[in-house]
Amino acid sequence: MENAVTGALFLGAIAWASYVSHNWAVTIGAGLGVIVATATAWVISADRPSIDAGLFGFNGVLVGAALPTFVANSPQLWFYIVIGAAVSTVVTAAFSATLTRSWGIPGSTGPFVLTAWLMVAGAYAFGGLRVTSAGPALATEYAQMGLVIPDLPELCKIFFRNIGQVFLLGDWISGAIILVGIFIASIRAGIATAVASAVALLIAIAMGADPETVRQGLYGFSPVLAGLAVGVIFLQPSFKVALYALLATITCVFVQAGFDVIMRPLGLPSFTAPYVLTMYLFIAPRSLFAPHPHTPVEGHAITKGGES
Amino acid sequence: MENAVTGALFLGAIAWASYVSHNWAVTIGAGLGVIVATATAWVISADRPSIDAGLFGFNGVLVGAALPTFVANSPQLWFYIVIGAAVSTVVTAAFSATLTRSWGIPGSTGPFVLTAWLMVAGAYAFGGLRVTSAGPALATEYAQMGLVIPDLPELCKIFFRNIGQVFLLGDWISGAIILVGIFIASIRAGIATAVASAVALLIAIAMGADPETVRQGLYGFSPVLAGLAVGVIFLQPSFKVALYALLATITCVFVQAGFDVIMRPLGLPSFTAPYVLTMYLFIAPRSLFAPHPHTPVEGHAITKGGES
Amino acid sequence: MENAVTGALFLGAIAWASYVSHNWAVTIGAGLGVIVATATAWVISADRPSIDAGLFGFNGVLVGAALPTFVANSPQLWFYIVIGAAVSTVVTAAFSATLTRSWGIPGSTGPFVLTAWLMVAGAYAFGGLRVTSAGPALATEYAQMGLVIPDLPELCKIFFRNIGQVFLLGDWISGAIILVGIFIASIRAGIATAVASAVALLIAIAMGADPETVRQGLYGFSPVLAGLAVGVIFLQPSFKVALYALLATITCVFVQAGFDVIMRPLGLPSFTAPYVLTMYLFIAPRSLFAPHPHTPVEGHAITKGGES
Repeated sequence: MENAVTGALFLGAIAWASYVSHNWAVTIGAGLGVIVATATAWVISADRPSIDAGLFGFNGVLVGAALPTFVANSPQLWFYIVIGAAVSTVVTAAFSATLTRSWGIPGSTGPFVLTAWLMVAGAYAFGGLRVTSAGPALATEYAQMGLVIPDLPELCKIFFRNIGQVFLLGDWISGAIILVGIFIASIRAGIATAVASAVALLIAIAMGADPETVRQGLYGFSPVLAGLAVGVIFLQPSFKVALYALLATITCVFVQAGFDVIMRPLGLPSFTAPYVLTMYLFIAPRSLFAPHPHTPVEGHAITKGGES
Repeated sequence: MENAVTGALFLGAIAWASYVSHNWAVTIGAGLGVIVATATAWVISADRPSIDAGLFGFNGVLVGAALPTFVANSPQLWFYIVIGAAVSTVVTAAFSATLTRSWGIPGSTGPFVLTAWLMVAGAYAFGGLRVTSAGPALATEYAQMGLVIPDLPELCKIFFRNIGQVFLLGDWISGAIILVGIFIASIRAGIATAVASAVALLIAIAMGADPETVRQGLYGFSPVLAGLAVGVIFLQPSFKVALYALLATITCVFVQAGFDVIMRPLGLPSFTAPYVLTMYLFIAPRSLFAPHPHTPVEGHAITKGGES
Repeated sequence: MENAVTGALFLGAIAWASYVSHNWAVTIGAGLGVIVATATAWVISADRPSIDAGLFGFNGVLVGAALPTFVANSPQLWFYIVIGAAVSTVVTAAFSATLTRSWGIPGSTGPFVLTAWLMVAGAYAFGGLRVTSAGPALATEYAQMGLVIPDLPELCKIFFRNIGQVFLLGDWISGAIILVGIFIASIRAGIATAVASAVALLIAIAMGADPETVRQGLYGFSPVLAGLAVGVIFLQPSFKVALYALLATITCVFVQAGFDVIMRPLGLPSFTAPYVLTMYLFIAPRSLFAPHPHTPVEGHAITKGGES
């Protein structure tokens, strides 16, 4: 239910971005992705609670939105999206059967990242597909400029863009509306989102990250997701968990930088991999945060396939 | 028993290729590999059923055949092969103790892929070994040509080469003989092989894959293995499983392209990694296909170490 | 207790190296790392036996020593070290909750390797940090020289440097003192160390590895660790285990070469990854070496968080 609302909002946000950019392929791809991924889940008899929670559809919608973002439109692209969305459901089921069943680690958007990496890499090899993102390159001219501190109005805009980028929205007004929506749904989640966005902003600037990337909010969306997942969604909130989520948020800014460097020679975007890896590492030892220490906790949010 | 026949056929096929090319290092390496890997399995007391099923010998023969294929002959090469084959047995035991025991995922040729990647990468660093394949390169000139559709006789030859390449045989007559052999052993397996080869051929051409690579059957052998493994060997055949195997076959064509791009900056061949990754992902959620849904199935083919 | 002594020795060795090089950042970083990592373990309520065994502090000290080694001094570096050390504790807990709990594979220095890779990669993207190691490069001019056999006195020095490099010490006298210390603690461990160092030296030279890298002992420290871990620490010593440890040592020389080649395009050092991967693969099938074959062994050295 809750995820259905989130999903509808997400599709709405993508549609809005398409309307602004006059490029509807991303919206159509996302819609196709959610339909194909969910239908595949039905065909392979994936478990009902996970389907109802939108776990499969969520990864399918991301694959369907990502492929037209990084691959130019062509007849083959649409076949690619259909197969990619169907595969994302298989990968989601594979993650559930291994990571989640054995260790209680939610797959989250990990299946999307793995599927999209393989598909974008493959696109380089097919004449019928043209990758539009920057191709493979050895990063030799790394950022070594001094610190660039934006003025206060710009800082506020980046604060909101960090949140908007979670829904792939690059303008600050969308981010502000989303933050209001999160606060309405849950005060706690709203505070976590705002703190994570501010912390990510502060850390990225203080470390001297590329100003343009910071400005677009691209250093913020994975840390916001990591802060929310660790601090609110998958662990019982407490003071200790709040500190832990703060560490996860800062870590995720560094992991974002690390993935951006590591993936560059391969010509692949980081997608949400920084959030996924950070969250996996911080959630794996979750039993430490259980009400009864040293007893593994089977958080229902995860075993029921809840998704951030 | 069955695997012994397959193994003998495989060695015979390699010997035939050596006879044609006058390069016997691959055949000698393969023979050395199977002996060393199996002897190592005995020494470390690996489980008898897996030894008898040829699980260890199979990965050893592949390491023994792959190293002379990608590394020029030298005294050090032969020491490298001996150690590589012995290690492949340890890696096979490690995969069995983790992937297979916890999640019922067969190691298959995954241990070969991991061992061969590390050994070929290492060969670049040793003056006593010379890697003969294309070295590390940033792929900047990716295929962007229009579609190239071979004429019908050529299409038929590629159809058979896709199958021959499973046994590293590049000529279409070998592929035809192998397909007849598979049909004699099992009608179902024969149909799965033929369908997978035709599908891989169709998809690779329609996507605009590099025509020369397609012509050699190199886009076909991993998808054929994936179709066979998912559709016949590790899951109980049914209409649903047939659809699932079709998706695995198509996916494997894309994963083949993806691995070819990702491994290029490292100067490493993809080996059977596209088949291995596709199969792992499609077999992990195998309980969905069990007679009693939601009950994990311990398919005897896997726990006994059955191998494709 | 035992690990506390090792830890103190390790810090002493780093301090000595700093005294010689007049560069104290590494020593201060290591001290900061052990404090932050251990404090983080207390805060997140990690299990007492692992804290007491120094499992968390050990990975923290390595992160704290590695970052100033590969990143130039700056205010941001010290914040980076604090966060890196804290994260290494989370990663250590994550490895314990997955690798160790499910498969009895000790995390060892794996958490350090993962944390340091992500942090050094990230450092390339931050203007406030400057990576001092060789940047990303495509390895095109691989070693293809003939064999270079050092004279006997030099061979002896390399034999000791292989051991000294385990503690990041590049001079042969330090290595000799450490070997004496190991012999005093355990004759068996001393023999394993000496044999592993000699074998690594012999193999690296015979394969034609880069003479300068061999001379510095950089081909020896991971194989020495692998030989010790497999032959003495994690398996019950026996003739079969001795052979197995010999294979692990030789394999680790090849894996060292492989990682050096694979990590070069990413501009990242191999750290102790060759030891970690070799050890994981050789320890995973440890039940084969149990007193009662086919019964998984819960070696107390591992479940209590013992560390090499």
